[in-house]
Amino acid sequence: MDLELNDDYIAQLEADLQAGKAAQRAREMTEVHPADIAEVVESLSLEAAKALIHALDDEQSAEVLVELDEDQRAEILEEYSGKEIATGLISNLDSDDAADLINELSADRKREVMHSIEDPDQAKDIAELLVYQENTAGALMATELVKVNVNWNVLQCVKEMRKQAEHVDQVHSVYVVDDQNRLLGTLSLKKLLTTSTRSPISEVYNKSIKSVEATEDGASVGITMQKYDMVVMPVINALGQLLGRITIDDVLDLIREEAKEDYNLASGLTEEVESDDNVMTITRARLPWLVIGLMGGILAAAVIGRYEDTIGELPKMAFFIPLIAAMGGNVGVQSSAIVVQALAGKTLMGTLWARLVKEVLVALLNGLICSVLIIGAGLLLGYGTRLSLVVALALLIVILAAALIGTSVPIVLDKYKIDPALATGPFITTMNDILGLFIYFTIGHLILGV
Amino acid sequence: MDLELNDDYIAQLEADLQAGKAAQRAREMTEVHPADIAEVVESLSLEAAKALIHALDDEQSAEVLVELDEDQRAEILEEYSGKEIATGLISNLDSDDAADLINELSADRKREVMHSIEDPDQAKDIAELLVYQENTAGALMATELVKVNVNWNVLQCVKEMRKQAEHVDQVHSVYVVDDQNRLLGTLSLKKLLTTSTRSPISEVYNKSIKSVEATEDGASVGITMQKYDMVVMPVINALGQLLGRITIDDVLDLIREEAKEDYNLASGLTEEVESDDNVMTITRARLPWLVIGLMGGILAAAVIGRYEDTIGELPKMAFFIPLIAAMGGNVGVQSSAIVVQALAGKTLMGTLWARLVKEVLVALLNGLICSVLIIGAGLLLGYGTRLSLVVALALLIVILAAALIGTSVPIVLDKYKIDPALATGPFITTMNDILGLFIYFTIGHLILGV
Repeated sequence: MDLELNDDYIAQLEADLQAGKAAQRAREMTEVHPADIAEVVESLSLEAAKALIHALDDEQSAEVLVELDEDQRAEILEEYSGKEIATGLISNLDSDDAADLINELSADRKREVMHSIEDPDQAKDIAELLVYQENTAGALMATELVKVNVNWNVLQCVKEMRKQAEHVDQVHSVYVVDDQNRLLGTLSLKKLLTTSTRSPISEVYNKSIKSVEATEDGASVGITMQKYDMVVMPVINALGQLLGRITIDDVLDLIREEAKEDYNLASGLTEEVESDDNVMTITRARLPWLVIGLMGGILAAAVIGRYEDTIGELPKMAFFIPLIAAMGGNVGVQSSAIVVQALAGKTLMGTLWARLVKEVLVALLNGLICSVLIIGAGLLLGYGTRLSLVVALALLIVILAAALIGTSVPIVLDKYKIDPALATGPFITTMNDILGLFIYFTIGHLILGV
Repeated sequence: MDLELNDDYIAQLEADLQAGKAAQRAREMTEVHPADIAEVVESLSLEAAKALIHALDDEQSAEVLVELDEDQRAEILEEYSGKEIATGLISNLDSDDAADLINELSADRKREVMHSIEDPDQAKDIAELLVYQENTAGALMATELVKVNVNWNVLQCVKEMRKQAEHVDQVHSVYVVDDQNRLLGTLSLKKLLTTSTRSPISEVYNKSIKSVEATEDGASVGITMQKYDMVVMPVINALGQLLGRITIDDVLDLIREEAKEDYNLASGLTEEVESDDNVMTITRARLPWLVIGLMGGILAAAVIGRYEDTIGELPKMAFFIPLIAAMGGNVGVQSSAIVVQALAGKTLMGTLWARLVKEVLVALLNGLICSVLIIGAGLLLGYGTRLSLVVALALLIVILAAALIGTSVPIVLDKYKIDPALATGPFITTMNDILGLFIYFTIGHLILGV
């Protein structure tokens, strides 16, 4: 069942929830997907949201809570006691979602919840997951999976799988392990269906399998899964023992967040910001880089200030300030963006030097074309030969310098484990602007002698 | 098995392939994943690549070809006759990959290949897929799937699934259809394992299922799959009949390409460009927007030119040209980026007017803060009260104007089915720069009277 998500629906729901009709409205939603309910909840007032979540049955409310914004989830969870979280919510979640939810609680509450989990196996699984650092394979994985022993035959496997499947929502893959729980391969549903029940597993399982260690970075797991078109990836420890599995939807969220971060950096936004965030949040996300731009502008004013006499004598010099500044910034961002994407996809080939040589060639070509165009335009529009020459020469040098800076900064940042995407932000752009103006006025001073 | 991808390995492989040792090198790769071989092939000369692909067995060479760049694939396929493509390659591919490959051929070759396909069922499946427009659900789906009739019992299903699974590489989901092939739901592996073989399917299958029509846009299918954490999505026709299924890895490629396009637009690159493309390709991707920037710069020169006397009398006016231009551009891109992301994720709520009001509030807040900062800086650095006031007032108006333009342009573009991400490109940025300068000099002229 789908909800019709419009302003009228939300307004009516909000009114009903405020009027104490939560149970009735929750009953209408028993067939609705938790992701859809979460979307509705995000548009409700805190009070109404709490009423609705409380009125849903435990399994549904747990799944809706997982889909919510972290902030809203925290506000709603304040109403719950540690025991309610453990028995009502955690017991209805997969281990990875449960661990994520518990990780967001304060230290006290975390302890309270962990001690209230009734199933000792689940408590142990979650406790193990809580050890892994954020965004590593270990923190992303769930421990629910179906595995069989390599020494069994197909019939034994089916029996065992039947038992295990009770605890697993969706069976993506059946893993084959040895007596020490070391991952050996997978058993495909196809093989299971098409071989005799007496066949030993050792003869029918698929031995070529990719896996990752629990300490590996989540984003790089995502790149591997995309490269090999994998839907689920097994996670092992240093001994090769099977710990859990990561499904593509979990790493997708991570990949999407990183892509969004890069995009935001390139567009001058400092934090994750949505169009429906409030005015203060959006302002906060945008102000830092405007202030950097402001400081850059003040610095640029100081640079130009050194040539006040030049401008006084030849005001035409000022005409091309925006052109020089804009072109330096544009070339720098272009160069950085190519490197940033190559670094993110791990496809950056060759050495820094090889890249710089190539970048110089591209910049020379672009720079020469732009310089010729600007000389033509300058003469045509009557700015005079000497000024046109100054602008063209400055432009060529600015494009070369900006390309070199734009290429090397992200590579250097990456080397020191700083996010290379920062290079596409206003900091480098502003630096390029100022450098460009300095080059322009120096050349103007030398050639025009003013 | 993994390949060690380094320059030495590639050089040695290239030499061996040129020396006629293709068969031997291909034999070493029988256990290597096609995606890894494709990565190697992309670094080889055309001649060596052809030799290697020819030396691989049919199934492997078909899968490697699918993973290659479109350009390289076209060059290598030139060597193949239509019959070789049909029998050697197409017969080893899933219907979706086969249709994609055939779609890239010339009309003559396409016909030749289609007539040479030996399996009439496969030929019919591919012919049906070729009808769908690029990037629709129909073009993305594969027809290989496992389905059962709702009137059967579990035992009949297992028997039928056994037959169907022979033709399917990986079984992600088992679909339940009625006698008219209308999609009713799915049968989970869990249910299949845990219920008696005599149970009728109608009692155990999962009736809540999401599906898409074949004509739906591929990117929006991707958004739906991500929202509901789906790994595979069934595709139906207008009658609700099951046509095929889309796996998450196929839409992932599409989503990633769109995200990359947006990122490129925001960083001033016109086409998809990789760091290892050659100098000409990279130059071509970058030049168009540099030329737009250039023209913007020339226009800006003309705008400033109208105030030549002002600058001659008060050269200090020129100092703040970069600041005004940069801030207009920055605010515009920030505003556009938020709208572009909301449009891409289909989360843009409320009307254009509501958005504009919010945007004005954010801009007012940011603008006031920046203006106060610039007055402080101007006084402190000795630029005088009146000039500082001019810069501050111009800055406030520029930030407001740029925010309004940055917000409305992508919404208007989207309304006319033009990619809203274009708004983050240099065209709008340049327009904002020029508008900003115009505002600055007008205010300067009015207040300073020069």
